[in-house]
Amino acid sequence: MDQNKRKRVIIIGAGFGGLWVARELSGTGYDVIVIDKNNYHTFLPLLYQVSAAEIEPEQIASPVRFIVRNFANVRFIRGQVTEICYRDKVVICLGQQIAFDYLVIATGSVNNDFNIPGVLQYSFPLKTLDDGMILRNHILTCFERASFADESKQRRRLLTVVIVGGGPTGVEFAGALAELISGPLKKDFPELGNDAITIYLIEAGENLVGMYGGVLSEYTKFQLEKKGVKVLLNSAVSKMDKTGVYLKDGTIIETETVVWTAGVKGQLVKNDLNADILPNGRITVDEYCKVPGYDDVFIIGDLANFLHNGKPLPMIAPVAIQQGKYIGTLLKALQKGKRIKPFKYVDKGGMVAIGRNKAITQIAGLKLKGYIAWIIWIFIHILYLIGFKNKLFVMINWIWSYIFFEKSVRLILPRCCDDPHGDACLQRGRSCME
Amino acid sequence: MDQNKRKRVIIIGAGFGGLWVARELSGTGYDVIVIDKNNYHTFLPLLYQVSAAEIEPEQIASPVRFIVRNFANVRFIRGQVTEICYRDKVVICLGQQIAFDYLVIATGSVNNDFNIPGVLQYSFPLKTLDDGMILRNHILTCFERASFADESKQRRRLLTVVIVGGGPTGVEFAGALAELISGPLKKDFPELGNDAITIYLIEAGENLVGMYGGVLSEYTKFQLEKKGVKVLLNSAVSKMDKTGVYLKDGTIIETETVVWTAGVKGQLVKNDLNADILPNGRITVDEYCKVPGYDDVFIIGDLANFLHNGKPLPMIAPVAIQQGKYIGTLLKALQKGKRIKPFKYVDKGGMVAIGRNKAITQIAGLKLKGYIAWIIWIFIHILYLIGFKNKLFVMINWIWSYIFFEKSVRLILPRCCDDPHGDACLQRGRSCME
Repeated sequence: MDQNKRKRVIIIGAGFGGLWVARELSGTGYDVIVIDKNNYHTFLPLLYQVSAAEIEPEQIASPVRFIVRNFANVRFIRGQVTEICYRDKVVICLGQQIAFDYLVIATGSVNNDFNIPGVLQYSFPLKTLDDGMILRNHILTCFERASFADESKQRRRLLTVVIVGGGPTGVEFAGALAELISGPLKKDFPELGNDAITIYLIEAGENLVGMYGGVLSEYTKFQLEKKGVKVLLNSAVSKMDKTGVYLKDGTIIETETVVWTAGVKGQLVKNDLNADILPNGRITVDEYCKVPGYDDVFIIGDLANFLHNGKPLPMIAPVAIQQGKYIGTLLKALQKGKRIKPFKYVDKGGMVAIGRNKAITQIAGLKLKGYIAWIIWIFIHILYLIGFKNKLFVMINWIWSYIFFEKSVRLILPRCCDDPHGDACLQRGRSCME
Repeated sequence: MDQNKRKRVIIIGAGFGGLWVARELSGTGYDVIVIDKNNYHTFLPLLYQVSAAEIEPEQIASPVRFIVRNFANVRFIRGQVTEICYRDKVVICLGQQIAFDYLVIATGSVNNDFNIPGVLQYSFPLKTLDDGMILRNHILTCFERASFADESKQRRRLLTVVIVGGGPTGVEFAGALAELISGPLKKDFPELGNDAITIYLIEAGENLVGMYGGVLSEYTKFQLEKKGVKVLLNSAVSKMDKTGVYLKDGTIIETETVVWTAGVKGQLVKNDLNADILPNGRITVDEYCKVPGYDDVFIIGDLANFLHNGKPLPMIAPVAIQQGKYIGTLLKALQKGKRIKPFKYVDKGGMVAIGRNKAITQIAGLKLKGYIAWIIWIFIHILYLIGFKNKLFVMINWIWSYIFFEKSVRLILPRCCDDPHGDACLQRGRSCME
């Protein structure tokens, strides 16, 4: 087939959505270009374990070129798309114009600070592989500094971690961090009293993992509290500064470590599309995941505001994967001059790990908790993790820490500036990386 | 035993030398403090494999606290020693004074630029775990940029790697890089012609791995050239700038990637010791590894200029390990009021890997090359690597790449600045990290 006659599909973003489109289009007559600012795909559901020093960053990432290199008609460009110019039907990437016939926007989401003062400057996000490593570095550095701090107030400050947001990410990270601290770090830092270490999990709503509710939410709270996590419900953050976190009820929690998992918002690059952008950054799409008014621009994943029974679909991996597959199928049908049915989301349920032997799952309406839920959680995560070696290494790490109560990844790496104390720059983690 | 009556040994540096002292002193009556600016020990002999995307940085590093936590009398401080104040018998670390009775200086070495202009600014060192990751990021980024470069001259520039120094590190890295490029990267970047990619290995002397000489040096050169490496002997670098490398014979090699493995020099912190510092930064020690004139200050490893049959011992791991063990034994003897014999280095030989199935070794005068040497190389490196899980993961990675000709670690991580192209900062690698 003549390359010049092939229609070109540009996919922006190599997350779950984008990659599934590419996979579906492999071997078709389309000329497909995947563009991402990173040269790897990140398996975000396990990112919190990178921050908890459980697994290595390399183990939840796969080079995009490795994934697409068996798809003869799919190419990869590592770069940031700086603009979508629909009028000319091009995207601008690395200063060059790249023409498309069809555009799939799968750029995902970024942290949403809900305009609360100080969140961007004083909290750690947990959205990218870099974030995961920076947070790991920061927490381990706080322990090192605490071990050298004379003053008990400063020590307590360094050993207080506040996690804002009681959704799945906040819960999973709180559980993993509690186990990191009560296990390996307690053995590594015998000089630190156990009492001084506090993990807060702050949730504005009435329940942890509110989407599950009822018995699963209560079980989650009970298990986290058993691990020593202080769960504060109905607690909203009013601001943050270098002292710590200020709650609306007047409480001040002094800390150097605030992890923000309270919400995300859609992220889109500069464009000339006449699209309806909601306050949460998402863009309303029609029942074919198309931007209304455009026949050749699709949005999938976190960025897409897709209404399902009148309510927007959640910003989670299964939605992105299903929409990615759908768009691939739709484009293949278009090639044959066929039309397909509107996208229909199949809710396969969800799951949240709380720690060793403890998880909650809700599958096909069936609510499970405890050991069986935990086994299901492990099985599903290994199944979806890309790359056989990644699966193997993550499994070994998990078995290792299960048997030995040990997490041996806990390196402060890389030191990102030449400050001899290594602290000034790590204190707020991101300051010197940006 | 009363803690206050214990004599305190401070060990600066958690490399091979420092850790072996600590290990030897575990369970003795000494109060031992190990100080290092990193919270991990790095297994430097495999660092080049991190840069060649063969193994993950976490796999050649072990948290120091994990290593020393079973030694009840050994503590760890993560921090940089900024000054040794012998007059007061203290070291200054993180702004505090820490008193010692005995001091072991094992701070190792840094790159030696031999005052050649441009080396520090325009070349990549390969001495620390950070260096290893930065170089990996840089090389992979050059390939990404080349795949997007229109102009063939710029493309060739990006695909030229110059390694300066034909010692073990230079040879091992050249071999590993050649395999990375001819294997995975060739498959990942089908758009890049193979011809455009060039690896130079530049050596000022007459031979590669000159310490072996003869048939082993020739074999090494032959094998590297078979892999496509251009070996330039008797070639000295006169300067470097942003264009590339200038050789003394007038040759200019245009490149963005110069790796400097041509030599190291001792590194010592500020101090009031009256010691004899050589031009190469090393400090002459007596036959007990003591600084002449001081009964309580020892120097071991790369920093120590120890004369063995009139010649200084090389700056390699086995010397540091043997000296570390020796100082531990010496201090234990001192406690009992005994004296021990002077330090005697036992040369167990050396080994250099060139690539798949290819290595050279010289053990007890016996010179081996090829497959058997390679098996010995693997066995010895796994044996000395600290941590069972590290051994396991490195073995799996090696078996993996052996069977599949695949190296799946090749992530550009972390992106260290917010430049959308990610290139400005990676172009010279270190610029934004420092």
